[in-house]
Amino acid sequence: MHPDRFEYSAENCSIQRTLEIVGEKWTLLVLREAFYGVRRFADFHRALGCARNLLSARLKTLVDEGILCQAPYQQPRSRTRVEYRLTDKGQQLFPALVALMQWGDRWTADPDGPAVILRHQGCGHQVHAELRCAAGHRPLSARQTQATPGTGAKAA
Amino acid sequence: MHPDRFEYSAENCSIQRTLEIVGEKWTLLVLREAFYGVRRFADFHRALGCARNLLSARLKTLVDEGILCQAPYQQPRSRTRVEYRLTDKGQQLFPALVALMQWGDRWTADPDGPAVILRHQGCGHQVHAELRCAAGHRPLSARQTQATPGTGAKAA
Repeated sequence: MHPDRFEYSAENCSIQRTLEIVGEKWTLLVLREAFYGVRRFADFHRALGCARNLLSARLKTLVDEGILCQAPYQQPRSRTRVEYRLTDKGQQLFPALVALMQWGDRWTADPDGPAVILRHQGCGHQVHAELRCAAGHRPLSARQTQATPGTGAKAA
Repeated sequence: MHPDRFEYSAENCSIQRTLEIVGEKWTLLVLREAFYGVRRFADFHRALGCARNLLSARLKTLVDEGILCQAPYQQPRSRTRVEYRLTDKGQQLFPALVALMQWGDRWTADPDGPAVILRHQGCGHQVHAELRCAAGHRPLSARQTQATPGTGAKAA
């Protein structure tokens, strides 16, 4: 165990705070659909097949947290409705979703392979999530990294 | 919306399958502690402060899924107990945890900054998660990527 483990509080841990916002399966699946470009309630519902009240609650959380924003739209002969779009804050969750997908591709995929390949739009090559340091060393495994106290570290 | 969105089934989505295994806040927090080097039940309990039966259940899930493995240890004048160690499969979840932490550092940290800085042990520079393509283009945002059907894609 890291010798400092119990010297610092985990109360302001950024992983924990992130999970308090998006750490629920359906919330992350709503985000997956948003990254696929889904914007409308009916399409989220069709894509996810979850209960409507659960979907409403997850969308509300994501809007309240500034991860999705609402924008009005109107189709011919219909009343105005709202659609949901990723904000910059939401866009920045993409590496986390890709890292989860990558692990699933490696460890949970069917024998015929993963369902989705993510590609760089510019060149078509496959995209992956990796850890690198500011000096450019990469890819780094957990064992090659060390957790050190940040400016917000609090004594336990 | 991506024009293919409803052409393919999300039933074998790797994000969904990953979340079915680790997509619960306490499971990911147990893993956080494992990456900090925590191995023993009492230390997980002290670090997380959750109910003992909840911790037992999460550890069991992680062992059943091959993310943690059990190894016996014995302290003087005590009975043999088991400790929990990350397997290779578990180690490979690290980029996902770092990506979640990074988002939290950016959007949820206290004004004085994040609690933890992750550094490359070799050179001391800060570590981050990023998306890059196999041709080396980086860092890529969600908008620069495109989801394409993989070999396991199934018609809806």
